[in-house]
Amino acid sequence: MATCYSIQELMRMIATAAGSIADTVSDREGQRFMQALLTSDRIYVAGAGRSGLIAKAFAMRLMHLGMESYVVGETITPAMEKGDLLVTFSGSGETHSITDICKTAKAVGGTLALVTSRGESSMAKTADLTVVLDSRQYDDKGLSSDFAIRQITGEHRSGAAYNPKAPTGSLFETAAMIFSDAVILELMDLRHTAKNEVEENYSNIQ
Amino acid sequence: MATCYSIQELMRMIATAAGSIADTVSDREGQRFMQALLTSDRIYVAGAGRSGLIAKAFAMRLMHLGMESYVVGETITPAMEKGDLLVTFSGSGETHSITDICKTAKAVGGTLALVTSRGESSMAKTADLTVVLDSRQYDDKGLSSDFAIRQITGEHRSGAAYNPKAPTGSLFETAAMIFSDAVILELMDLRHTAKNEVEENYSNIQ
Amino acid sequence: MATCYSIQELMRMIATAAGSIADTVSDREGQRFMQALLTSDRIYVAGAGRSGLIAKAFAMRLMHLGMESYVVGETITPAMEKGDLLVTFSGSGETHSITDICKTAKAVGGTLALVTSRGESSMAKTADLTVVLDSRQYDDKGLSSDFAIRQITGEHRSGAAYNPKAPTGSLFETAAMIFSDAVILELMDLRHTAKNEVEENYSNIQ
Amino acid sequence: MATCYSIQELMRMIATAAGSIADTVSDREGQRFMQALLTSDRIYVAGAGRSGLIAKAFAMRLMHLGMESYVVGETITPAMEKGDLLVTFSGSGETHSITDICKTAKAVGGTLALVTSRGESSMAKTADLTVVLDSRQYDDKGLSSDFAIRQITGEHRSGAAYNPKAPTGSLFETAAMIFSDAVILELMDLRHTAKNEVEENYSNIQ
Repeated sequence: MATCYSIQELMRMIATAAGSIADTVSDREGQRFMQALLTSDRIYVAGAGRSGLIAKAFAMRLMHLGMESYVVGETITPAMEKGDLLVTFSGSGETHSITDICKTAKAVGGTLALVTSRGESSMAKTADLTVVLDSRQYDDKGLSSDFAIRQITGEHRSGAAYNPKAPTGSLFETAAMIFSDAVILELMDLRHTAKNEVEENYSNIQ
Repeated sequence: MATCYSIQELMRMIATAAGSIADTVSDREGQRFMQALLTSDRIYVAGAGRSGLIAKAFAMRLMHLGMESYVVGETITPAMEKGDLLVTFSGSGETHSITDICKTAKAVGGTLALVTSRGESSMAKTADLTVVLDSRQYDDKGLSSDFAIRQITGEHRSGAAYNPKAPTGSLFETAAMIFSDAVILELMDLRHTAKNEVEENYSNIQ
Repeated sequence: MATCYSIQELMRMIATAAGSIADTVSDREGQRFMQALLTSDRIYVAGAGRSGLIAKAFAMRLMHLGMESYVVGETITPAMEKGDLLVTFSGSGETHSITDICKTAKAVGGTLALVTSRGESSMAKTADLTVVLDSRQYDDKGLSSDFAIRQITGEHRSGAAYNPKAPTGSLFETAAMIFSDAVILELMDLRHTAKNEVEENYSNIQ
Repeated sequence: MATCYSIQELMRMIATAAGSIADTVSDREGQRFMQALLTSDRIYVAGAGRSGLIAKAFAMRLMHLGMESYVVGETITPAMEKGDLLVTFSGSGETHSITDICKTAKAVGGTLALVTSRGESSMAKTADLTVVLDSRQYDDKGLSSDFAIRQITGEHRSGAAYNPKAPTGSLFETAAMIFSDAVILELMDLRHTAKNEVEENYSNIQ
């Protein structure tokens, strides 16, 4: 008895699928997301399960860039305030524990950004801006008969029956990680340039 | 002043780069890794920084599959014993805190598997098996002049100067996540089939 | 300007206050709590903020005793099922994020135990059993004029204004940790004896 | 078969024991610890196992007071620098993983404070200041025949045989939590007064 694909083949399939999800990102929402990151006082991230791990990976890079970021639930995360941004990662857009956090963020006057696979979800309806990484496209392309892709897209989820925190599927999470890294590269580029300009200004007034 | 690439373009570049790293995975080491997962009593995962988040994402999926897995450093992680497997994720293969954990794993008679970008690193030398996801290939293909790719591959790392835990680069981590998910798909396939066979055996003796 | 108390004096005050809270623990609820721990399939713990850290310290000791325990929110925590026990730590008994978890625990047929300072709180009303560690007694004993004790009991909480997760006060948490350790000692004693009895039985049938 | 003590009795024994450990805290080291907290740029905390949870509880309160604090190993913890303080909690003073972190702290020019039960341990030798909470006193007072106290003081530790991270005993951790809370009360008092003085100064110059 053998598996249908080698690990290398599966890696290439996942990478190709995750990359193609870039097509579902709206230019306008992508730009609004960048704008929100650049203009907020502090950036909070939240997510349940594996989406929460992607949220942490994003917050860590923001810190590396010198931006003030916090992970909801970690030890030294201060109270959110007006002017702060909450970035939530939720494949389904229906994660209950995150919904509560979103309400608090809105109640204190914060901005709510959602990264999700479901643009029409409950969380998308209350978010100030929503980046859609639609991993469902694979269901409609005749690939649903393929065991591997069904697993990746979350059509089959072991033990997810009653757990409201179960991820939509690994493909959303991989796409969310790649999206986060792309955003970090944009921020590095933008802030790098800004730093040069600031240094040029220094030179001019010396 | 503008960035060179859109978020969507950067996502596609990252996905393509991560997928191509599949070529650096050795068939033999991939198979030995699968074998170690399937034959160990318990699976422990460890990693520092963002590699540690990928390690957690992998452990969570193993738990979803019904395999006994633990994250080094979490609350209820029991002592490792002979017959257990430690899977460490380290881009550089030189992370000091992980090196200590690896020594303990070997001292108790456990098996040590390493997922790294550096097949010749210190940790690779002591590991029982090493899966190489070599993200350095991009340095040698004329892409090193490209700001984005240099950032992805970790050639430039903000604040990494004295921090031994600094990741090698985001590209290793993305490739490690995709590798982990590919391994999970292989495990689902293998164990699914095994379950069928067991059920056939049941039918035979009823 | 000087502080009123030395660190040593404050330590003794806190220890004395925490110890006296033992008086508020009901014998019957204490016994029911022990019973629930001993008869449940698996023990889950949950708590927000510092109460969450006490919950983890408790879960770690349960694991040391060989009992199957999990922390809600950690990586490899499996889905709760009928027969499982959820132990929540909440000083106020009103922590929103924990309330959601409690609902899930009840929905799947699990048992819900609450350790709290407020026996009449919302969470106490839905819990199957409630251990009260009433840290409010200090407010009624003429000690409320005392800066230190007011701080300990949570009468003054910096930054707690809008944060629903703010702890009731440090004194509850210290009492909860001491309560947890007392429970662990009882479990060690009970299970130690049981182990002897089992071994005697072995000897008998050899 | 019955346990020797009720939960309430055990709670009082633990609280009394923890409070009496205050006697082992040196006035001079206590004051130097306060001074280090008040004069450092940023405060990092570290600890393994249950000591790590106490470290987090301390860092959380520092954040509540508006002091910049970080937990080693959490997502957004930045690199340590000269002028920063690392507070480590280690009952044995020999925890290997913490030893590595201490070396890094010293290497970058940071100050190293240790809270431990062992004033003569390896970590105490390299620390700039050491607060001793000596939980061993109970071994020498004829109480070692008492099952409960032996467990509390860590004389018996299940599963600690080969685990270098095993805590010295629950009593150290409880004393460390009470010590931390006493320090927080001192800080609140000191900083509260300072704030008044600053405001009086404002009034004078208006």
